Amino acid sequence: MKRLKATIAYDGSGFAGYQVQPDSRTVQLELMKVLETIHKGKVVQVVASGRTDAKVHATGQVIHFDTELSIPISGWLKALNVLLPEDVRVHSIEEVDTSFHARYHTTGKTYRYKWDRSQIISPFTRSLMVHIKQPLDVEAMKKASQAIIGTHDFSSFCAANTAVVDKIRTVRRLDFEEHGNELHMVIEGTGFLYNMVRIIAGTLAEVGMGRRKAEELKKIVAAADRDAAGITAPAHGLYLENVMYKS
Amino acid sequence: MKRLKATIAYDGSGFAGYQVQPDSRTVQLELMKVLETIHKGKVVQVVASGRTDAKVHATGQVIHFDTELSIPISGWLKALNVLLPEDVRVHSIEEVDTSFHARYHTTGKTYRYKWDRSQIISPFTRSLMVHIKQPLDVEAMKKASQAIIGTHDFSSFCAANTAVVDKIRTVRRLDFEEHGNELHMVIEGTGFLYNMVRIIAGTLAEVGMGRRKAEELKKIVAAADRDAAGITAPAHGLYLENVMYKS
Repeated sequence: MKRLKATIAYDGSGFAGYQVQPDSRTVQLELMKVLETIHKGKVVQVVASGRTDAKVHATGQVIHFDTELSIPISGWLKALNVLLPEDVRVHSIEEVDTSFHARYHTTGKTYRYKWDRSQIISPFTRSLMVHIKQPLDVEAMKKASQAIIGTHDFSSFCAANTAVVDKIRTVRRLDFEEHGNELHMVIEGTGFLYNMVRIIAGTLAEVGMGRRKAEELKKIVAAADRDAAGITAPAHGLYLENVMYKS
Repeated sequence: MKRLKATIAYDGSGFAGYQVQPDSRTVQLELMKVLETIHKGKVVQVVASGRTDAKVHATGQVIHFDTELSIPISGWLKALNVLLPEDVRVHSIEEVDTSFHARYHTTGKTYRYKWDRSQIISPFTRSLMVHIKQPLDVEAMKKASQAIIGTHDFSSFCAANTAVVDKIRTVRRLDFEEHGNELHMVIEGTGFLYNMVRIIAGTLAEVGMGRRKAEELKKIVAAADRDAAGITAPAHGLYLENVMYKS
C-alpha cells in the first residue's frame, strides 16, 4: 500500500464546497469518482487538509489517498488530470510515508482574499473576486490588521454556531498586495476557525470603507464576541493558497 | 428621439452568442429585455457593430439604440448596469447623432485571441483562454503573420458556408503579446469575414506547434481556398476588443 499526497487547485464557482454532501457537486466527490474509476470500482477515501465552503477556491489544497496500484507518479498526474473535470486540476503528486496525514499534520495554512476595485465589475472575474466600488483606505486596513497578527482568542472572528471550544489561534502574517485594480489580503496562520478569514476580510473591508476605525480592531479582538466584528465577506473572494507540513 | 451609443463587455461563456435566436440566452436578448423594462414594456431595437459567436467574449463591443426617454447619461449607465446580468457590463454610453449606425459606420475592428501556455490548464481561466500545452515558437508565428498583414482575398480564412461574395479585406495590424504564460494575438482590420480571426489564430498556432512552416502562409493566402488553411481555433479564446468609427 502506498500513500500519495497531491496538491490541487479548483475554481469553487461550480461546487457546493469541498466536502461530500448529498445531491451536491463537490470537489471531494469528483476526486472520489475519478479514483474509483482508476481503481476499477473500488471506493478510495480522500482526505483533505480541511474543507472549503461553497464558491471558495483553492490554488494549493492538499489531499492524500492510499492505493495498491503500481502506477508511476507521472502517470498519476496525467490520469487524474485527464479524468477530472477542468475546474479541478492536480498540480503535483508525490509518494509520502504512510504515516502522513493531510489534515492532522498541517502546521499552517495560507489564504488569499481578493477584491476587485474597478469602477465597473469585470464580467470575466465576477466569480473570482469580490467587487467593491467605493475607494478603500488600504493604509487604514494595514494599520487595523496589526491587531489581528499574533496569538489571540479569535472568538470574534468565528461563525457563532461553531462547536470548537478552543478558539485560540496564531496569525503569523497578514499582508496586503495591490495589483492594479485588485487588492489581495494574504493571511498565514497555524489554523483557522470556521469563517475566520472571511470575517477578518469583511471587518478590514469595513475599515477600508471608513465604516470602522482602525483603532477599533484591538477592542473587537478583546471582546471575544462574534457580534463585535464586521460582516462575513463573500465566499467567492477566498482562496486556499498553501498548506504547510513539517518537512 | 435620441440615439445612444454604448460600449459593452461580456463574458461569452454563458451565451449562445450575441444575436437573438430562439430558445437561447444571447447578449442582444439580455439588452433588449432590460431596455424594454426601462421603456415600460415598449420594445427597443438594439444594433451592434456585428454579431459574435457562442462563447466569444467582448471587451469593447459597440451598440446603439434609440429612446424617447429623458434620462441623463450617467443615469443610463447606472440603470443598465443595475438591471443587466453581471456577465454583461456597460462601460460607457453617450448620445450620438441620429445618423450614427453601430454596424454600417464601422471603419475597423480589433480582436484579441488568448492562449494559455501553462503546463496544466488553469481552472480559473478555462473559459477565457485556449490552453496549448506544447511549446509555441512565437518567432515563427510572427514571421508567418507577415503574410496576413495587408489587403488580400481572405477566402482561405473564411468559413466555407459564407454567403459573402467580396472576400477582400485589409488587416492593418497583427501583433503578438506575451504576458507570462499567456500569448495574445492582436489583430486589427477594416472588417473580418465569418470565422476569419479564429482561422488565422488556428493556422498560426499550427505554425507555432511546428505543424506548418511560416513560409507556407503566403501560399495559403494565395490559394483563396478554406481547405488550404488550418483549423478554426476555439471560440472561447476570442475577444472583440475595439470597434472604430470615423471620428
